Amino acid sequence: MKIAILGMGTVGSGVIKVIQENQMEIQQFTNEPIEVSHVFAKTITNQHDADFQNVIVTENIDDILNSDVELVVEVMGGIDFTFGLHQKFLSKGIHVVSANKDMLAVHIKELAKIGDENKAQLGYEASCAGGIPIINALTYGLQANKINRVLGILNGTTNYILTKMTQDAWSYDKALKDAQEKGYAEKDPTNDVEGLDARRKIALLSRIAYKQNLNVEDIPVRGISQVSVQDLEYAQADGLTMKLLGKSEYHGEKVQISVEPVLLPNNHQLATVNDAANAVYVNGNAFGETMFYGPGAGSLETASAVVSDVMNIAKFGFVGNLIVEEDANIDLAGEAASYFIRFAKGQTEVKLDVNYKVIADEDVLVIITEDMSANALEQLENSHQVEAVYVVIKD
Amino acid sequence: MKIAILGMGTVGSGVIKVIQENQMEIQQFTNEPIEVSHVFAKTITNQHDADFQNVIVTENIDDILNSDVELVVEVMGGIDFTFGLHQKFLSKGIHVVSANKDMLAVHIKELAKIGDENKAQLGYEASCAGGIPIINALTYGLQANKINRVLGILNGTTNYILTKMTQDAWSYDKALKDAQEKGYAEKDPTNDVEGLDARRKIALLSRIAYKQNLNVEDIPVRGISQVSVQDLEYAQADGLTMKLLGKSEYHGEKVQISVEPVLLPNNHQLATVNDAANAVYVNGNAFGETMFYGPGAGSLETASAVVSDVMNIAKFGFVGNLIVEEDANIDLAGEAASYFIRFAKGQTEVKLDVNYKVIADEDVLVIITEDMSANALEQLENSHQVEAVYVVIKD
Repeated sequence: MKIAILGMGTVGSGVIKVIQENQMEIQQFTNEPIEVSHVFAKTITNQHDADFQNVIVTENIDDILNSDVELVVEVMGGIDFTFGLHQKFLSKGIHVVSANKDMLAVHIKELAKIGDENKAQLGYEASCAGGIPIINALTYGLQANKINRVLGILNGTTNYILTKMTQDAWSYDKALKDAQEKGYAEKDPTNDVEGLDARRKIALLSRIAYKQNLNVEDIPVRGISQVSVQDLEYAQADGLTMKLLGKSEYHGEKVQISVEPVLLPNNHQLATVNDAANAVYVNGNAFGETMFYGPGAGSLETASAVVSDVMNIAKFGFVGNLIVEEDANIDLAGEAASYFIRFAKGQTEVKLDVNYKVIADEDVLVIITEDMSANALEQLENSHQVEAVYVVIKD
Repeated sequence: MKIAILGMGTVGSGVIKVIQENQMEIQQFTNEPIEVSHVFAKTITNQHDADFQNVIVTENIDDILNSDVELVVEVMGGIDFTFGLHQKFLSKGIHVVSANKDMLAVHIKELAKIGDENKAQLGYEASCAGGIPIINALTYGLQANKINRVLGILNGTTNYILTKMTQDAWSYDKALKDAQEKGYAEKDPTNDVEGLDARRKIALLSRIAYKQNLNVEDIPVRGISQVSVQDLEYAQADGLTMKLLGKSEYHGEKVQISVEPVLLPNNHQLATVNDAANAVYVNGNAFGETMFYGPGAGSLETASAVVSDVMNIAKFGFVGNLIVEEDANIDLAGEAASYFIRFAKGQTEVKLDVNYKVIADEDVLVIITEDMSANALEQLENSHQVEAVYVVIKD
């Protein structure tokens, strides 16, 4: 099968490398070679010494649209222009494999339909949690279940920063700077640290899990830029670890969904997912709980997911895209939850109708409440000097 | 699609329950209902209050062989008789989904071929690691890689026992008795505690990972019945946790494979997999490392994997079984490894060519060595009074 790669940055060159290096594994699986015949790019970054000898490099997309490629891999990023390209290829019955969560989180509903109308498969394993085959698992491994919860550490940058803050007591600023120096964080880290990247991924995963379309903009989001090391220490002293989670729950009516920093018991499977790793924790009515751990980013790691999609499409062709008609009804009020609450210095007394335990009261007052409604929390915030609030997940 | 279930014990009744309870999810996926028309069993245990009204219960396998079922689910267990049934159904072009690792570990090579000759699919997701979709992940999620290592906590009984011994300092005997009372361990626990169950599973998983047939009897196995709580304490003091691992490695020549209790750093993803949970940790040349965590057993949990296979076959039909021609060349000498070694009381001095650190020397001498060959270990055991040896895995 001839394929084209749109975009030749970090992931694109990883895809070339994996296809060349693991061609034997590919042919055993697909019974035919996979050949990269075209690359859509200005320049080639060849960080893996891959072989580009027989590859046509072009800046004219029509060269590819009018070629005999049966599949394009889109690893360019960007939204509007890339959406247009997806439409073009899918409309021509050319399969598309994409790592572009930014665009897919907004346009997947439409693209899946165009694909189905033209018998073109849309693969996007690489768009969520990098090298972890979570989309495949939700679609073909856990699909006998009613899925009722998805919790994901879906952004390696913020997980790295929180890990450094937790384990080494680094400030947020120091950890961010270190992440930038190591290449985990971009110069403008907003997308990562404010949770926008994780929000796109939890939207995509929840759509598969619950068969509900989620409007990304409707999902409440809160990042980690306001997290203080002191709160992490208070939490640790009570056996809790902070993770930035994309989280959603669905029990047949409204969908609870958000991205926010959350406290988990140290023995929760997600609590030990450290550094730049990603993980997705899923609950279903038959299997109970599972977790999938692995790399969230990286050239070869992401390419692993891309090439897996390419191989499945090469072997099975068009098998149908996930078409979702129902739009989610997002529950903005939220369910009752346990909260970690830190009060301002002067606030030494608390009036609260639910039980709570005090986990610090020397310098400032910090409590962890039993389950309380969002309403009750709002009342507390209005009547007390509250400085920090985090949801505590117990299981 | 009409299906039959062979065997109506814990898993069989879970399969009925999941099919009935999640029929909506099934039909969304397969576009047709899945109907259990026959059950091959003497009696029905209906632990989930499933509905058996329209199910024909028979003790005559010909009733099913000559019916219009397109797929049979085999959850009977046993080897010879069940192997015969598999042959019969696959030869007739009837798909088979099985949870029977005991039989498959021995006969999968032959059954996969019979299936391919008759366009019958053999699904066995439920045979390894219960509700974790690890076979699907290896086959359709990580298949773009050269897989070079599989480490699995593949037996919930032994993981429960080791967890109790580690966390609560229970003796092996006490933990085993508790596991038996809780229903995790059988009256005769040999298969679990001596590693025989895990050996079958690591054989099946390694076959998929490396495309090599493994003769189960050739795989070195050592269980946990000789593990002492004191060794777990020495190990914990040095930041190491014991797990019974099915483990294999392959770098293109010989396969290293064994089942044995192994010490892992506390921050290794596998070290925090506790109680009766299972997990499979996989290394590949593109994705690096991933881990899949979840339930290793249970009625609905195992049924989740069974019904997932049924749904995939209902949707895609025969897609080809994994045919493996190459027989593994098992490296019995093993690679160089780091060892935890506890000596007998009188042995206070060690003569060893590799570096080691002493982690206890008050009551008895306990050391952890740097990597040393199996040969060197044998020499040490011959010339010193060694009482316990465990491999230490560092990453």
